[in-house]
Order: sequence, then structure tokens, then C-alpha cells
Amino acid sequence: MKIVTLAGGVGGAKLADGLAQLLPPENLTIVVNTGDDFEHLGLYISPDLDTVCYTLAGLANPETGWGRREETFHVLENLQELGGPDWFRLGDRDLATHIERTRRLREGQSLSLITRDFCQAWGVRQPVLPMSDQPVRTMVDTEDGELAFQEYFVHRKCEPKVKGFRFAGIATALPATGVLEAIEHADGIVVCPSNPWVSIDPILAVAGIRSALAAKLVVAVSPIIGGQTVKGPAAKMYTELGVQPSALAITCHYGKILSGFVLDRVDAKFAQNISIPTCVTNILMKNQDDRRSLAQDVLNLIQTL
Amino acid sequence: MKIVTLAGGVGGAKLADGLAQLLPPENLTIVVNTGDDFEHLGLYISPDLDTVCYTLAGLANPETGWGRREETFHVLENLQELGGPDWFRLGDRDLATHIERTRRLREGQSLSLITRDFCQAWGVRQPVLPMSDQPVRTMVDTEDGELAFQEYFVHRKCEPKVKGFRFAGIATALPATGVLEAIEHADGIVVCPSNPWVSIDPILAVAGIRSALAAKLVVAVSPIIGGQTVKGPAAKMYTELGVQPSALAITCHYGKILSGFVLDRVDAKFAQNISIPTCVTNILMKNQDDRRSLAQDVLNLIQTL
Repeated sequence: MKIVTLAGGVGGAKLADGLAQLLPPENLTIVVNTGDDFEHLGLYISPDLDTVCYTLAGLANPETGWGRREETFHVLENLQELGGPDWFRLGDRDLATHIERTRRLREGQSLSLITRDFCQAWGVRQPVLPMSDQPVRTMVDTEDGELAFQEYFVHRKCEPKVKGFRFAGIATALPATGVLEAIEHADGIVVCPSNPWVSIDPILAVAGIRSALAAKLVVAVSPIIGGQTVKGPAAKMYTELGVQPSALAITCHYGKILSGFVLDRVDAKFAQNISIPTCVTNILMKNQDDRRSLAQDVLNLIQTL
Repeated sequence: MKIVTLAGGVGGAKLADGLAQLLPPENLTIVVNTGDDFEHLGLYISPDLDTVCYTLAGLANPETGWGRREETFHVLENLQELGGPDWFRLGDRDLATHIERTRRLREGQSLSLITRDFCQAWGVRQPVLPMSDQPVRTMVDTEDGELAFQEYFVHRKCEPKVKGFRFAGIATALPATGVLEAIEHADGIVVCPSNPWVSIDPILAVAGIRSALAAKLVVAVSPIIGGQTVKGPAAKMYTELGVQPSALAITCHYGKILSGFVLDRVDAKFAQNISIPTCVTNILMKNQDDRRSLAQDVLNLIQTL
């Protein structure tokens, strides 16, 4: 079974890792949100791409889900001493990724080529594709005005109330090389339990991706458990936009692109109101076994469709 | 006694540190070569400025003379893993200096302002001034063609035979704020035991500096001991340019700007052929005491002139 999965950061990376434990590497392609990418300290940073790659490589920090394991922060400590901007916590090992990516982008190389080479260096055997090689920037419209995503997410700690979203650059962004081909050849598409507003919507908004999905079996895993998110502001965003955060709200969000839906046992009551096939299971991924087990449930659901 | 010292990297930093042990901070100004500055990995690197500042701050690596003490190389290690350029060994703590300097330069701030703030953060109380806020780049003409200084010095390990030097940008470079004022108010100028060709000549070539020195007592310390340098390619350069490297060659190099000269005991025989007052002493600085003792000899010579 050939699978393409659409992923944001930590939650997406965990399910991608579960799928990677079950499928041969050539049968899994991970398409990653780049709407969170930004420039900081002159460096081009791709938080979701890095989280996915580090996780698949076994290099991710198991405590946080993002950043590198056995990380040090000597650069950041000395940057603080000099009064430099320290609100985005960059580890030393992680920093090398941004430095080398930035150097190669400035030489004119594409993000997808650079990501492919990085994956090879880290021993990641699955194709990890940025959604686009053109810059797309998620802008968060808040009661304090429009904020760049990382400004909202990290610097302002998701505090300003959300009014809407805009994906700057989306009109001219094309799917990165390999994205449409992978979708075309896939037996199923897995929408990871990532933030629908700011992790999955940017991917769906890239020209041609949503229409390519129309012909496919698409299964989403709920990022909401009992009205809450495991991590990140998705539930808070739904509430601020006037929608009760729930598994049901997620199926409404994705609408007719979905063929199946995976939700948590605590949300079993919603299953009867969902008109597509569902799988009710444990979707909280606390360890490697949880990742693999959830991935297996997702693959089973796809096979029944 | 108010002193201005002209300094390159490690040798210059050591004597500046010796002078700093003897003089009140407001009576010592260090003017530093920036001809070695370069861009690497998108970062603006000022090797001599950093060596002088780290040394005065007590942050320098005592083994190498350059870089930071208790340094780690996690960024570099990971950069190597990604196949990035690793020929210039950047430590993690040191890297923060380049990142923050580059960020502030891109905001339009001057190198001298940034250096002043860095010195304050590091507890360096002596004014440390780059020779110029405009970029000057030392280019080394070699038998393999013209090479940027760090390309010659670090990447090519000073192997190509030298034919001459060029200071790109020197025609439009002005002394940084405070340089000419410090020289004007100085009772003596100390030319550190730095490379005459590529550390001191760039400083002297900045518009107005050489002429400002003409009215001053200028004492140089030989960077050559027994025909050799302690560090760096000065002796090799003299030989390749057809000049026997010696204390005598140094006095000829600086010519009439010198009022006095300090040379090592092993070179005492040259003193009789030097037409200006000399001080023959131990000029090898192996420890803090050597630095202070040499600085005292230099100040004593200035006082006798």
C-alpha cells in the first residue's frame, strides 16, 4: 500500500514515524507544511520540516517533540549575553541545519533538493517533501493585528485572540517536485493529527493539491481529544473563531475531501454524527508503540474503504 | 601616559592585554585590523577584533590564542554531517558573536558601535576600535592567483607563495569614529608584534592614519624572533618576497614612522644596525607575566624618547 501523509510539526511527525515503522520506505511519502517557515537571525528556519526529519531520523528531542536530542544551547546563551533576540530557542545542533540550509538556498538550490540531501545525511529513507519550494507564510489575523506565524506562536505564545488566517505567497506557490506524483500514485492519503488551520490548510491551499486529493481515499486523524489538543493552539483557535473544538468540528473543517476519519475513544459519541466511515481508537501517541498502533489503525481503515 | 596600540590577531591581543594590565582603561585604545574580515556561511566574521576582545575579556582560548575558552563545536560537527563547508573552525560560543554582529550590521549599525556594545557585554573596559567601519579586504597575490585572506590563511594554510598584497576597498575606507582622536591625544603609539604585511599595513593604509602617526612617538615590537614568527606567516612572506626575515627587516618595513623599536635578546646583534633607540628584551609572551613585562618595557622605551 502506497501512502502519502500530510504533516505539520510534532503530531504529524509522530504519526509519520508510526507509518514509517509499518511501510517500506518507498511506499511512504511525507508532504510537510512550510507555512511556519521564517527568517530569524538571518537564517531560514523550517520548523515542521525539521521536526519531521529529526523524528524519522531518531534525532528528535523526546521531551519536547521538536529540536534535537542531547542538544546544547551555547550559541543561544552567548547570544543572550550580547543582548541578541533569544525568543526563538535555537539549539546548537539544530542551528547547523538552519545555517547550511540558508547557505544552500542563497546559492539558488531548492528547499526540496536541500531536504532530500539532509534526509540522506541523517539516514531518513522516506521521501520528505516540503509542500512547495516557493515561500508561503502563514499570517495570523488577531485582535492585536496580523502577526507572522512564529511571532504569534512562539514570541506571543498564542495569546492574541485569532480572527482568521492568510497564507502569503500562496497564489504563486506550486507543489514541490514529487508532491503531485506521489499523491497520484498513492493508495491512500493520511491527514496527520496536525493543526487544521495552520498546518494542513496551507498544504491544501497550494495550487493543485486539493484537486489531486479529490480522486483519492483520504483519512484524517483527529488532532482534538476530548475538546483539547495534545499540543498547540488548534482548540483555542476553534473556540476563538466561534466553533466548539471537537472531533466533529474537524470532519466539518475538512469536509468532502475526507473518505474516513479516526477519532479517540473519549470522543466515541461523535462517531454516530459523522457520515463517513470512522475508526474509534486510542489516538494519543505517548511512545513508539502508540505511534505504530495508531498508524496500523489508519492503514486498516483505508483498506476497508 | 595615554597609549594607542595597533593590533592584528593573537600577538597583538597579547601585548594589548599586557598594556591593559598596566594602564588605566581610559588611557589605552586598541585599533584593530579588519582586513582579515570576511563573510562565511552568511556571517560577518572579524577574526582580529574578536581575538582582541576575547583576550581582553579573559574569554580567549589559552591554547590557541583565538576562539573562546571552554568552547564546544556542536554546530560545526552537525554542519560537517550535512556536508557543509567546515574549513573555518567556528565554535558554538564564538558563533553567537558572528550571528549577532551580522544581524546588527544588516540593520545598518556600524561595526564600531557593535564592537563597543559587545565589549560592554563582555566587561572589556578599554576602547577597542576597528580601523574602519567600511569594509577593507586583504587580498593575497600568490603564484596560484589572488586569494581572499582567509582563503589563503585558513583554507590554503598559507601554502601558496606570496607575490604581494592588495587592500580592496581601502580607497574609500575612513578611520572608524574615535581612531584619529585617540591617536591625536596619545602620548605614544605601540605597533604590536603582528604581521606587518597583513595586520599592520592595512591599518596604516586607511586614509589619515599614517599621517596622524607622523607627529607621534611610535614604538614597534618585532614580530620576528631569530628569523621566525611565533605564529602566522610573516617570516614566510618576507622570504617569498625576497627579504630575509629579521628584526632589522621589520624596522625597514615600517621606515620613518618609527621612533623606537623593541626586539628580542636573540636578535641583539641587529640593534647596532638600527638607527633609532631600541630596547632588547624578552619579547616571547608565553604567559600573563610575559605580556605585562613586555608592555612595561615598551612603555619604558616610550618614556625615554
